[in-house]
Amino acid sequence: MTDFRQQALDYHAFPTPGKISIELTKSAETSKDLALAYSPGVAEPVRAIAENPEDVYRYTAKGNLVAVISNGTAILGLGNLGPMASKPVMEGKALLFKRFAGLDAIDIEVTHRTTQDFINTVANIADTFGGVNLEDIKAPECFEIEQALIERCDVPVFHDDQHGTAIVTAAGLLNALEIQGKQLAKVQIVCLGAGAAAIACMELLIKCGAQREHIYMLDSKGVIHTRREDLNEYKALFANNTDKRTLEEVITEADVFVGVSGPNLLPADALKLMADKPIVFACSNPDPEIKPELALAVRKDLIMATGRSDYPNQVNNVLCFPFMFRGALDVRARMINDEMKLAAVEAIRQLAKEPVPKDVLTAAGVDALEFGPDYIIPKPLDPRLRTRVSRAVAEAAVASGSARIELPKDYMAE
Amino acid sequence: MTDFRQQALDYHAFPTPGKISIELTKSAETSKDLALAYSPGVAEPVRAIAENPEDVYRYTAKGNLVAVISNGTAILGLGNLGPMASKPVMEGKALLFKRFAGLDAIDIEVTHRTTQDFINTVANIADTFGGVNLEDIKAPECFEIEQALIERCDVPVFHDDQHGTAIVTAAGLLNALEIQGKQLAKVQIVCLGAGAAAIACMELLIKCGAQREHIYMLDSKGVIHTRREDLNEYKALFANNTDKRTLEEVITEADVFVGVSGPNLLPADALKLMADKPIVFACSNPDPEIKPELALAVRKDLIMATGRSDYPNQVNNVLCFPFMFRGALDVRARMINDEMKLAAVEAIRQLAKEPVPKDVLTAAGVDALEFGPDYIIPKPLDPRLRTRVSRAVAEAAVASGSARIELPKDYMAE
Repeated sequence: MTDFRQQALDYHAFPTPGKISIELTKSAETSKDLALAYSPGVAEPVRAIAENPEDVYRYTAKGNLVAVISNGTAILGLGNLGPMASKPVMEGKALLFKRFAGLDAIDIEVTHRTTQDFINTVANIADTFGGVNLEDIKAPECFEIEQALIERCDVPVFHDDQHGTAIVTAAGLLNALEIQGKQLAKVQIVCLGAGAAAIACMELLIKCGAQREHIYMLDSKGVIHTRREDLNEYKALFANNTDKRTLEEVITEADVFVGVSGPNLLPADALKLMADKPIVFACSNPDPEIKPELALAVRKDLIMATGRSDYPNQVNNVLCFPFMFRGALDVRARMINDEMKLAAVEAIRQLAKEPVPKDVLTAAGVDALEFGPDYIIPKPLDPRLRTRVSRAVAEAAVASGSARIELPKDYMAE
Repeated sequence: MTDFRQQALDYHAFPTPGKISIELTKSAETSKDLALAYSPGVAEPVRAIAENPEDVYRYTAKGNLVAVISNGTAILGLGNLGPMASKPVMEGKALLFKRFAGLDAIDIEVTHRTTQDFINTVANIADTFGGVNLEDIKAPECFEIEQALIERCDVPVFHDDQHGTAIVTAAGLLNALEIQGKQLAKVQIVCLGAGAAAIACMELLIKCGAQREHIYMLDSKGVIHTRREDLNEYKALFANNTDKRTLEEVITEADVFVGVSGPNLLPADALKLMADKPIVFACSNPDPEIKPELALAVRKDLIMATGRSDYPNQVNNVLCFPFMFRGALDVRARMINDEMKLAAVEAIRQLAKEPVPKDVLTAAGVDALEFGPDYIIPKPLDPRLRTRVSRAVAEAAVASGSARIELPKDYMAE
């Protein structure tokens, strides 16, 4: 076992198992404390909430509490390993929520028989939380699950593998297009992969202005086209009326390649076929569809992004999901709608154009970061993300009618 | 509004809403930390758990994590106010778990249509936790719910309103009988109330040696007897083949009165009819079935217990449930069986016979506590409860085959 793998196991095992705990935010030392926290004092907030349901945000932790829920059917790139094996990932997500956005997040792993059973279980417990983050649920079930839960729940439900990835990809891609001097409405896009993240990425790009008929999506059987009869309803939306059948055919003269598939699936030769000033987002993790050094050796005019922290332009969901929930919960949003997603895209995108503070450079271990081919997306440890993205999301929630309360005064002022 | 009521609301509202938060137990500052806690490092514990399911206890918080689950159908003595109104109570229970036993507990409030729907929801999420504490669920559904969940879940499921109350009551009552010079197998018992706590108390007393035919249980319609045709299956087990119909009739010559009903339901005159050296557990909260000063004015030979902290002999579930789960989780018990419950009764009971350390006296605000009519049950803030009860439960779990692992070396050594 490599040193890093053993370190990862040790990190999880010592000194106590796991990564999160429950702590008390109120004193619980004296008999008086306990009489206030539990019987008989606790009857007062109970009565208050029974009379006025919104008081649950006043007297309980609900308003800062996020559930990270999975069934373990698509854990990282490792596949369907079951709910228990997903627990370290869900606890990790809870850790990121706290670390980046100060949100209290708890993992819930669901064992179930049918998709409907999963939906019902999550809907039945959703009111416990201020919001629900779905994670590592396989396609195509994830689409039905998310849609049904959005309809049934009074709190925001967000499948991060879909929309978190889509939002950060869109932010980076819009900046890359600007640098390359191209317009989203006109570019030809190849999307390698047709899972949850791929479909969500393309749907969001269309909302940002991309043309559906300019998109070529490929699954394991090749190009998704109108004559295929093996497509689920979600892939079918991307069936292109084309005679092209192979990656080589569709990538010819393409402006943008988005990979959400697997390691080393983009041959360097295929890159040579792309249009001038191409853009490649090779987001397969940990091993991208093509290694940046290999890609840039073939195409000097390329802008490249990956999911890795050891190359420039990391597409990392942590740029979005903590602040999406922070903003949504702070105005008690009923749901996360398109307006809020697009506001997050814009906030992330704009931040990359601003001068980078010294502490961010230090944390990133670089001397300079300037908007350009090697810096199209903010760094994950940039503390301005919290204020900018949360505020943009909260403002959009209020403007679009999703919010239950107004923006708090001086919200996320810097 | 009284000062105490306002204090209780303020305690819950300020400086942050609620009483619990999620905190990180591992460092999450640097990029390296995050690479260990989340992608790519987190893949290692995922793979380990997929290969060996028991590793979930090694790499995640599961082994110290308890769910406090309610549907809000019987909140304190306030009735069915719904899941959201129960949240302060469930968070309060989580606070007690942490304060007394160091367990991480999170509340889950369940909205559901049918009893089966509730059972299914809890069963589907139970593997997330090391154990499940059910709370404030109304009778008779609570019996079916608990039984079904015990059968379906691989982790301990415990309805504290039933068994926590029963265990502490049994411990106190056995000590009171010893002081009064009576034997459980011979005494006549009146149980006023026929809800979850009442039925569980009587069932546990029978397991301790009480005779079912010596028990007279009363519900809102009077004595539960064999000619009644309105009894659910749980009350029917206590249908007594008797001609007695009223409290006055059954309390005549009774040795023991257990009240789990409502305030002031035991008239002082009825006390005069009891046998010599009677025992009265008036556990209705916050107002007992009879006030201790009133009862003791009528019967000097009485031993009396209530649910209140401002009188001697407080029957308080916190003497049991934190340590029941502590012991059960520490040996990864599959369930909480009768052996473990009886071990808890015995441990609580014996502790009341030991000399009381000075810090416990100080916390209780008294000069002395000596085993006798005014001290039959340990004080809630007695730190020895944690070691004694947890150890007794864990040992019983190992001896009875409920435990998945052996007792840790020097477990709960003092």
